Amino acid sequence: MNAPMQTDHSAQAIMDQLGQAARAAAAELAVADTAAKNRALLAAAAAIRAASAAILAANAEDMAAARAKQLSAALLDRLELNPKRVEAIAVGLEDIAALPDPVGAVMAEWTRPNGLHFKRVRTPLGVIGVIFESRPNVTADAGGLCLKAGNACILRGGSEGFRSSRAIHAALVQGLRAAGLPEAAIQLMPSTDRALVGAMLAAPQYLDVIVPRGGKSLVARVQAESRVPVFAHLEGNCHLYVEASADLAMAKNILLNAKLRRTGVCGAAETLLVEQAAAATHLAPLVTMLLEHGCEVRGDAASQAVDARVKPASEADWATEYLDAIIAVKLVPDLDAAIKHIERYGSHHTESIITEAADHAAEFMRRIDSAILLHNASTQFADGGEFGFGAEIGIATGKMHARGPVGVEQLTTFKYLVFGNGQVRP
Amino acid sequence: MNAPMQTDHSAQAIMDQLGQAARAAAAELAVADTAAKNRALLAAAAAIRAASAAILAANAEDMAAARAKQLSAALLDRLELNPKRVEAIAVGLEDIAALPDPVGAVMAEWTRPNGLHFKRVRTPLGVIGVIFESRPNVTADAGGLCLKAGNACILRGGSEGFRSSRAIHAALVQGLRAAGLPEAAIQLMPSTDRALVGAMLAAPQYLDVIVPRGGKSLVARVQAESRVPVFAHLEGNCHLYVEASADLAMAKNILLNAKLRRTGVCGAAETLLVEQAAAATHLAPLVTMLLEHGCEVRGDAASQAVDARVKPASEADWATEYLDAIIAVKLVPDLDAAIKHIERYGSHHTESIITEAADHAAEFMRRIDSAILLHNASTQFADGGEFGFGAEIGIATGKMHARGPVGVEQLTTFKYLVFGNGQVRP
Repeated sequence: MNAPMQTDHSAQAIMDQLGQAARAAAAELAVADTAAKNRALLAAAAAIRAASAAILAANAEDMAAARAKQLSAALLDRLELNPKRVEAIAVGLEDIAALPDPVGAVMAEWTRPNGLHFKRVRTPLGVIGVIFESRPNVTADAGGLCLKAGNACILRGGSEGFRSSRAIHAALVQGLRAAGLPEAAIQLMPSTDRALVGAMLAAPQYLDVIVPRGGKSLVARVQAESRVPVFAHLEGNCHLYVEASADLAMAKNILLNAKLRRTGVCGAAETLLVEQAAAATHLAPLVTMLLEHGCEVRGDAASQAVDARVKPASEADWATEYLDAIIAVKLVPDLDAAIKHIERYGSHHTESIITEAADHAAEFMRRIDSAILLHNASTQFADGGEFGFGAEIGIATGKMHARGPVGVEQLTTFKYLVFGNGQVRP
Repeated sequence: MNAPMQTDHSAQAIMDQLGQAARAAAAELAVADTAAKNRALLAAAAAIRAASAAILAANAEDMAAARAKQLSAALLDRLELNPKRVEAIAVGLEDIAALPDPVGAVMAEWTRPNGLHFKRVRTPLGVIGVIFESRPNVTADAGGLCLKAGNACILRGGSEGFRSSRAIHAALVQGLRAAGLPEAAIQLMPSTDRALVGAMLAAPQYLDVIVPRGGKSLVARVQAESRVPVFAHLEGNCHLYVEASADLAMAKNILLNAKLRRTGVCGAAETLLVEQAAAATHLAPLVTMLLEHGCEVRGDAASQAVDARVKPASEADWATEYLDAIIAVKLVPDLDAAIKHIERYGSHHTESIITEAADHAAEFMRRIDSAILLHNASTQFADGGEFGFGAEIGIATGKMHARGPVGVEQLTTFKYLVFGNGQVRP
């Protein structure tokens, strides 16, 4: 039992070194002007393009090792880079440069009767830890977003993509250097030792927030063990509820998109609820459409009566995030029952109601405690880009501060500025 | 070692019971309308007045027990109720009823090119745990603020004031009942068993945030041990920095107020920094004024040269929150040195600059990472009432979500509402 202890000690030493450097960099970044941050982002994009061959070579080594380990095709796809994907990484950094700078923005402003004038302004969070798995592009996306919001970051990539991440990180550091910003603004953990994850979770003195980017087991571990606040969602068990007043063509179009546009994203619909009054009009066309598009349907008795291909749903199905071409379908008596079902089985991520009754949509939105609620639109709009945030580092279901897509604005906090002319408190 | 284990088991059983009741109440409260919440607050105020004799009798028992235990005069003062203080508790509830309801307020609103319309609206946080010490009025203040923001709360009062808190809590429950709101909206822990604090800190499934109201040791324990997010500040080591361009009369007036209006509040100034260029003009009048008002001054060499009564400051003084009529005084070369001193020794709570140079004030405010920064005004304005928030449950120095005075608005979070007419994601 000696080895883990030694590993932990050395992980702590690495965390101390990177943490102290990050804190110093964060102090500089917090007051860096927008032009410098954008220069760094654009220089990093140029460096990514210039280093494309080196990045692809590093990625080829990662891919060879991953194939040797017989990792899954899905993981290999997430890991793989090609010239088009490298170009997309560079464009992503340029897109972040084009976003407005949130730091210093006045969120609210008011004057008190005694003449004191108050401003609530955005400030960076400080240092952000990002723990990700196999996608090498997260190195640039996360690093760029943190930088734009005036934060230093410490990135910890998964072992599969470590060589790729290191090559991308080198380009980011070139960008920082070109803009005269501290190189420690974006640091990559120097190894993929798992003890480094533990050291990050135990480092509130160095990290202001941690963003886990990866599968459910990673997010669950981070949420359970972190002493640092976390921006994350564990699951996206998203619901689509169709009322009898819904336009059927609209409902079909939205359901098809919400379930099948991409099945592996957190905003994909996992359960379809249909109002009892729509049993004769909407249920069969919706279920049949799903089956015809190759979606497995697991339904209650009413749904099973529609088509022999519908499998019986178990209790577990209502609580399952399939992330696959599978959907659970249930007839519910009314809006109240739909809301109660979602509050019971949902994950407070994203839910949509399809209805022509505006008062029902309002009640659905008022009573359900999820980060994102939609009316007559697809759940797959749960995305920072679709919100107009430009880019996102993740989607948060926690209630503190960041909820929903976490873009550059959500990577900031605020402080109060108060302007007087000699006021003292009576 | 058997007894503590048994205590913990029973504490967990109590936490489970109160936590489940609070979650159920929170679901009702989240959608309670403003009128019902205000009815409950006004009925609670009336019940406080009607139960004044019972509350004072309970408080007399608490006071007798506290005197028997020979508790300090300061603690006895915090514990004691009298008819005027009971009336102030009732008025406090009426003031909270008069505040605008933050729930449902639209924080931001925008439309995307595809026609999707987004709203970011305020929602309650859920269930709030409040851990307080001897002041019985916190029962009503905290319970009332949580209720107004649509949150259920679980209150854990200190043993000294337990009888008083129980009597006040009974009146709050009468108010809830009168308004048809769930009685579990405001629950008081049924005993002052210390294991109950531990059970609260370990209950993220029941509590969305914990607010510790009390001394530094309580806050330190909660911050170190809580698995639930915390709204708190550990210290208010607040600074006043006076530049040579400062109007001397204004500086004296503000300093007197910032240090001595009340010395025991978190917004009291603890260190005075004076710009080197003001050594001949401002330092002596400011130090002399403090001494004449009975304030102990611990200074650097320049301050000691002003008056023989000035004691030498040690390194520890720069980092000390005295909460007493004591101040540390130091001459600093310039604005940059003042900022660096504050970032090194401060607690990120509240700092004020007295200057006629607007650009210096702007730099002070931009570079210092504290929740509240003032220009030409007293640090003692660090208070929710003075901010115009009507009331506060505390002041937070954390960066997540709530920072500065935590009023009714800060006891909420938000969700996104998205309105479409059939949009699907390309």
